[in-house]
Amino acid sequence: MTKIVIIGGVAGGASAAARARRLSEDAEIIIFERGQYISFANCGLPYHIGGDIPQRQNLLLQTPESFLARFNVDVRVMNEVTTIDRQAKCVTVKNLIDGTSYQESYDFLLLSPGASPIIPPIEGIDNPLTHSLRNIPDMDRILATLDNHKPTHATVVGGGFIGLEMVEAFHQRGIATTLLEMAPQVMTPVDPEMAGFVHQEIRDKGIDLRLNTALSAIQYHEKTQSLTLSLSNGEDLETGIVIMAIGVRPDIELAKQAGLKIGELGGIWVDETLQTSDPSIFAVGDAVEEKDFVTGKQCLVPLAGPANRQGRMAADNMLGRREHYQGTQGTAICKVFELAVASTGKNEKQLQQQGMAYQKVYVHTASHASYYPGAETVSLKLLFETTSGKILGAQAVGKDGIDKRIDILAVAQRAGMTVEQLQHVELTYAPPYGSAKDVINQAAFVASNIIKGDATPIHYNELEQLTDNQILLDVRNPGELKNMGFIKGAINIPLDQLRHRMNELPKEKEIIIYCAVGLRGNVAYRQLVNNGYKARNLMGGYRTWKFAQM
Amino acid sequence: MTKIVIIGGVAGGASAAARARRLSEDAEIIIFERGQYISFANCGLPYHIGGDIPQRQNLLLQTPESFLARFNVDVRVMNEVTTIDRQAKCVTVKNLIDGTSYQESYDFLLLSPGASPIIPPIEGIDNPLTHSLRNIPDMDRILATLDNHKPTHATVVGGGFIGLEMVEAFHQRGIATTLLEMAPQVMTPVDPEMAGFVHQEIRDKGIDLRLNTALSAIQYHEKTQSLTLSLSNGEDLETGIVIMAIGVRPDIELAKQAGLKIGELGGIWVDETLQTSDPSIFAVGDAVEEKDFVTGKQCLVPLAGPANRQGRMAADNMLGRREHYQGTQGTAICKVFELAVASTGKNEKQLQQQGMAYQKVYVHTASHASYYPGAETVSLKLLFETTSGKILGAQAVGKDGIDKRIDILAVAQRAGMTVEQLQHVELTYAPPYGSAKDVINQAAFVASNIIKGDATPIHYNELEQLTDNQILLDVRNPGELKNMGFIKGAINIPLDQLRHRMNELPKEKEIIIYCAVGLRGNVAYRQLVNNGYKARNLMGGYRTWKFAQM
Repeated sequence: MTKIVIIGGVAGGASAAARARRLSEDAEIIIFERGQYISFANCGLPYHIGGDIPQRQNLLLQTPESFLARFNVDVRVMNEVTTIDRQAKCVTVKNLIDGTSYQESYDFLLLSPGASPIIPPIEGIDNPLTHSLRNIPDMDRILATLDNHKPTHATVVGGGFIGLEMVEAFHQRGIATTLLEMAPQVMTPVDPEMAGFVHQEIRDKGIDLRLNTALSAIQYHEKTQSLTLSLSNGEDLETGIVIMAIGVRPDIELAKQAGLKIGELGGIWVDETLQTSDPSIFAVGDAVEEKDFVTGKQCLVPLAGPANRQGRMAADNMLGRREHYQGTQGTAICKVFELAVASTGKNEKQLQQQGMAYQKVYVHTASHASYYPGAETVSLKLLFETTSGKILGAQAVGKDGIDKRIDILAVAQRAGMTVEQLQHVELTYAPPYGSAKDVINQAAFVASNIIKGDATPIHYNELEQLTDNQILLDVRNPGELKNMGFIKGAINIPLDQLRHRMNELPKEKEIIIYCAVGLRGNVAYRQLVNNGYKARNLMGGYRTWKFAQM
Repeated sequence: MTKIVIIGGVAGGASAAARARRLSEDAEIIIFERGQYISFANCGLPYHIGGDIPQRQNLLLQTPESFLARFNVDVRVMNEVTTIDRQAKCVTVKNLIDGTSYQESYDFLLLSPGASPIIPPIEGIDNPLTHSLRNIPDMDRILATLDNHKPTHATVVGGGFIGLEMVEAFHQRGIATTLLEMAPQVMTPVDPEMAGFVHQEIRDKGIDLRLNTALSAIQYHEKTQSLTLSLSNGEDLETGIVIMAIGVRPDIELAKQAGLKIGELGGIWVDETLQTSDPSIFAVGDAVEEKDFVTGKQCLVPLAGPANRQGRMAADNMLGRREHYQGTQGTAICKVFELAVASTGKNEKQLQQQGMAYQKVYVHTASHASYYPGAETVSLKLLFETTSGKILGAQAVGKDGIDKRIDILAVAQRAGMTVEQLQHVELTYAPPYGSAKDVINQAAFVASNIIKGDATPIHYNELEQLTDNQILLDVRNPGELKNMGFIKGAINIPLDQLRHRMNELPKEKEIIIYCAVGLRGNVAYRQLVNNGYKARNLMGGYRTWKFAQM
């Protein structure tokens, strides 16, 4: 009879326990959870605060009782494992209710402790109005602060997933909100020009977005139950509540103490079977370092999907199977008001850091047939290997169909598809759902054109360095320039007049073409090049250039 | 200078012309279109009739003038090619306006004539109130009939894409509607138990759905501007308008006349470069036979996506490239009131016809985290090769996220993924968009369980033949049986009591387990099997069984 002890009863731990029981009726399975709840919906916490999920109860997916009845798992909440004795294969557990300690032996131990919010050593940060949000008690504390003090202004520090979701939650409660982000962009999984769409959306909703701005100190005023924040730019900000959401850090205390190998990035090291440096101990979820699917290097990806699948796999392997974890792409999505922003694989910043050779394309096109009501623009960035055409990463932003496009590309990337192959994918099409040539096909066409030499791209960030040997040509209609703006220095010849007015352009200079999104630019490019001109087409057109400034 | 003549100016023809111009400024490009319009939104026609697309103008995507201005293509509408002289490389064209004929030479000819509605030789079918719907004039005629005669009842013959869309269009206009379908199910790309969801939806909307019922004769009453339909079951039906939507047939008259090779299925034969049996003639779209991606056999798939991509590719190849068409999966979707129904690859009926060895699983799970508002059940059927686990086909029905799931599976299938690999796909997850274990992962888990021997499936259609050596066990809670019904003969032990009440079950019999959707059934199955029982779990649970009866 195998005895499995699991530390942590949320995503990875709960998945592992359920799977272990399905594989074996005999196994003794104990979950130790230092908190009060197991298997709660941590991704739903901001939505309860904002009111989208009215019932707190709905966040509690399982209870120790339900887990016992269904899976015969002994779940001990408010029980914290304090040490691991690897020699004796036994853990010491502290009962947090009565303070007593006891020991429990194991055949296999699974570490699923998760990660903790990073709280930087900022002066004054330890005050009753400054919170992080990771679990149900955190949420309850935030709600209590809102209920008790009715703040009229909130400040969120950090523009990642939780930060952005909390901005929306405060906004929904009618609380004026400031978002402080130290970096020049929010949502770091995407590149800055894609984050531009998010910046615009946040500001459109009246949020006070401050990029390149850090929190330096906090002053707590007990009398008024308010805070004065000192910012890195020297300004002060009065606020009623602060949410610290600058990131999380793997919980590795126990693992470290037990002498398990810790990875270079500070997560618990595991091999491809999710086994730690001790063959009797496995680890999963936010606490572990895993292999990046694209680069093969170590990475830390605190996401629910990988945690759940890892938990299931660790159970398989503890019970004698040999399943291999196949790396993490980091596929993720965030709702930011009406927008969705999503990504998979590597972004351009990471590819540059890694020194990998890549190309990129941008496509902006309708989420479904534009003549059918409800179509919204999907803005997609696709990164691919310069020679092989292998998909390296993708990012998308828009109000409709964003999850679908990134999911498609995540699967294509995992399958090892190239942009050449991606041209041929056959997606569902009817006017309410897609287009005969979907965004995905279009992006693959553009990428393949580049690989085949049928297109010569130029990118938004290269426009600042144009020389005297280059001419900027806007091929949109004059009305579009007037209504939407244009790039300084451009001359305007609408595409449908270009064939007859081509002689206005100098053959010795390089013509830098742009249109609204890049499609007409490509037609113009082909015309010019086939007529002996040198030309390049701005990828993603005016739209990419414009949102890169946001 | 290459001279390209294109017959047919809609999806395939228009795509080819635009691509050809992008590749070559020199080429002379002529499109002959016997109709009045080019490049119109044929997929949008039912939605204009139903009112979703209010402006007729929005269906006209391009005009001969816009095509000339942008692509320098000579578009001649109302010009019908009547013969092809392959020897002389020249076509004879009839100007349908003035009746004159003339000749036009070509270097390359592209046939993109499309397909025509099948009009069966039914007595009385040729009357002013019976229509098909394929192009703008068809739509105009239908609208004129509706406007002039204000019928209060409409009949649609054929429950395919256009038939179902027309049912919805009539319903939206407040017209009582009968749908006649000769087969036992509508929407033949999916299997009958999946079509059950569609039958239910159609009936819920008050549509008079008659399956297994054909139209035998029509009597036209000029005075009352009405029709009496004689049905195959001997009944009569009074109606004000009939739409014939039983399918389309490739337009091969010209190709046949010119002596081009015609395939076994009655479409124009083309090789993988889309070249016909004449090296100077290419053909694309609904008129051609293409290779089925899964079986490698010939198929006829009249869909817009393949037509558009083929048009582009034919232009490449006429201009000296050598692109290969990589087969058609037949990925398709249809909106049926609030439901979407979609499929890719082969369905079970086809796999049985082909004698291919397959397994199948059903999953019914929420389109996104069920605790976040707006989640709807996704009902998914996944077909895979028994030994290799290769994906053979997929079908899905539901109100949310159906296009996404079939798109993901269409890409996975095209990439050659197995269900084992599909377990690891990493999809976007945040509560508004997905689940930490998406429908796709879940289906792959279930399929992999079967392949590994961790699950023994039984299917809804096998329940009729249970023997005395089998016992039917319902593991839902009593309230569910009471509210949702149950399968006759089942005994009820709720899952959470099973471990303690297992002794009520006989070890010598096979326990056929079912729950609501198959998930609790799997937990029960594992419990029983790990305790030495023989058992099988009903795939898709009560839900699949129930909708198979609809």
